Amino acid sequence: MAGETDRLISLAHQVADDPDEREYDALISTGEQITVTLLAMMLNKLGYKAKSLLGFQAKILTDQAYKKARILSINAKAIKSELKKGTIVVIAGFQGIDAENNITTLGRGGSDTSAVALAAALRADVCDIFTDVDGVYTTDPSICSKARRLNKISYDEMLEMARSGAKVLQPRSVEMAKKFQVPVYVRSTFSDEGGTLVTKEDKEMEREVVSGVTYDRDQAKITIVRVPDRAGIAARLFTPLAEHNIIVDMIIQNASIDGYTDLTFTVSRKDIKQANKLIEEVAKDIGAQKVEVDENVAKVSIVGVGMVSHAGVAAKMFATLAHEGINILMISTSEIKVSCVMQAKYTELAVMVLHDAFELDKRS
Amino acid sequence: MAGETDRLISLAHQVADDPDEREYDALISTGEQITVTLLAMMLNKLGYKAKSLLGFQAKILTDQAYKKARILSINAKAIKSELKKGTIVVIAGFQGIDAENNITTLGRGGSDTSAVALAAALRADVCDIFTDVDGVYTTDPSICSKARRLNKISYDEMLEMARSGAKVLQPRSVEMAKKFQVPVYVRSTFSDEGGTLVTKEDKEMEREVVSGVTYDRDQAKITIVRVPDRAGIAARLFTPLAEHNIIVDMIIQNASIDGYTDLTFTVSRKDIKQANKLIEEVAKDIGAQKVEVDENVAKVSIVGVGMVSHAGVAAKMFATLAHEGINILMISTSEIKVSCVMQAKYTELAVMVLHDAFELDKRS
Repeated sequence: MAGETDRLISLAHQVADDPDEREYDALISTGEQITVTLLAMMLNKLGYKAKSLLGFQAKILTDQAYKKARILSINAKAIKSELKKGTIVVIAGFQGIDAENNITTLGRGGSDTSAVALAAALRADVCDIFTDVDGVYTTDPSICSKARRLNKISYDEMLEMARSGAKVLQPRSVEMAKKFQVPVYVRSTFSDEGGTLVTKEDKEMEREVVSGVTYDRDQAKITIVRVPDRAGIAARLFTPLAEHNIIVDMIIQNASIDGYTDLTFTVSRKDIKQANKLIEEVAKDIGAQKVEVDENVAKVSIVGVGMVSHAGVAAKMFATLAHEGINILMISTSEIKVSCVMQAKYTELAVMVLHDAFELDKRS
Repeated sequence: MAGETDRLISLAHQVADDPDEREYDALISTGEQITVTLLAMMLNKLGYKAKSLLGFQAKILTDQAYKKARILSINAKAIKSELKKGTIVVIAGFQGIDAENNITTLGRGGSDTSAVALAAALRADVCDIFTDVDGVYTTDPSICSKARRLNKISYDEMLEMARSGAKVLQPRSVEMAKKFQVPVYVRSTFSDEGGTLVTKEDKEMEREVVSGVTYDRDQAKITIVRVPDRAGIAARLFTPLAEHNIIVDMIIQNASIDGYTDLTFTVSRKDIKQANKLIEEVAKDIGAQKVEVDENVAKVSIVGVGMVSHAGVAAKMFATLAHEGINILMISTSEIKVSCVMQAKYTELAVMVLHDAFELDKRS
């Protein structure tokens, strides 16, 4: 059923440039409705008792934020009663209803999020997510042949990896899994081999310094040169971006010299044109010298819960990159992650040397 | 959105020859879901406040007869509350939910039936049905140029006309309108002109003998020759047809001679091959002489509430047909209808001469 959602979105945009959001969600939700009913039909045909349940039937209650609703609660009574009868229950992901019986959809990554939320509501032992790869790897095997599949990874690591470019799970589903402590088993649709368990942190994990190297090529950088360093300047720069739903990833502000500073941030490449236009306007108003755009950048990150208790991890990353002559343009860190923005052409090289430096080929 | 339902049906049949009916209904119901959400989007775009409501949201409760469910009740509270706010409510027809929250569909003519049921539940003054013609005619204008649009017609007449070939309204919706005494106004989607009110019988209607001439070319005739005339024979012949969902229209049994009779009946042309096969088997078993099939027949009917109090209407019909040399193969009558089966080639001629004979060009 690939392409069904695109077809529905296109129908909506044929009717209105900015379709009513309530109606949009009720329209888009038919995509999963078609998939689950066909799957249940197929199971029935094969001799299994199966039933599809839609958001309103599975009682998946969400808030009223159309197109990006959050699950508030699931009344699992109907599901449990079917399970008790031995029925295979096929539940439509990505959709729910709000308190007023309106159909809502969960937005990007919504289907994984539905699965994890259902596992939590049913107090399931584990939530299997079947995807196109057979687990979570130390890095992208298509770039680095030494990549190893991880048998286990903590919620926090998975979250940082998902946010910094690993595509295997959407961050929202991992947040949900962490919140309700649902073990998530990432498995292949096409093979019984492998799999990675995303679970709570344990002693074993903490012994490892780094669990993965990720990269994100969907990055573009904007620098505003010689911004007068006054209170409220950052708000004036970033409010227009927020109003246009442009998500800003990293933000770096240089130390102020003579009352002026440089401000650099990254956005998704698809947003760069609009972001540049908005920033040019504000830059003129606030008396900045100029705005520079660089679309040829990428972000490479290392992630690991062990970082918390191991000193010198960031320094080792910088030294490794420097040794290859890779210039670091921006740095951002969290407790369990270090990210470096660099010229895009260095992406593969950086991934490979970091994978070697942190001996990830010895992980499992 | 023409073709959407066909696409969904084809998807189901790709999965299973005989798809699970519960899942089939949940799948097929997405067709109207797409239509109503797009319509509500369009209205919102034009500046009107509009909301789509699906079966479960409009609380259209049906029985559990998937694919041909009947509406049991409508809890109009949600609809009324939206109407009070000035919202244009766009309700998905053809669908409902049963007492266990399963999605059901109403089968053929279901959308008109939904409309009439909603009008009844809301105690509406009138139910407008917008269709591709501008009303109900004395006969098909494409066959008879003298056809006149009727301003008013009774429920019973409309019902007989729909059953005997007029395609403007489905019989089920008319039954529903009659049951709840909902006036139905049949109007054109493409023009503000014209329209026919389907309403309860009045004095004026009774003065007219005949209101319309209808025809149905979707007829095929089977005759079983020299059937031993014993109790239970008819049941043995027609039970296999019922089991295969073949609807038998007219049945004629000749007077028995020497313990043998001929039995003739009509079915829809699409069913004739299967019906013939089933009947051949039984005919052999019961010792009938042979089975004859005629696919080149049509049914022409006259309908009118005035027949009840006017003698000689059927006789006038037979005489009119005889005068043109049209041989009548089968006859069936009800209180307000006379139907004659004839060779299909006479259909147009029969319609025209009957239209003249009963002076329908003078009706309004």
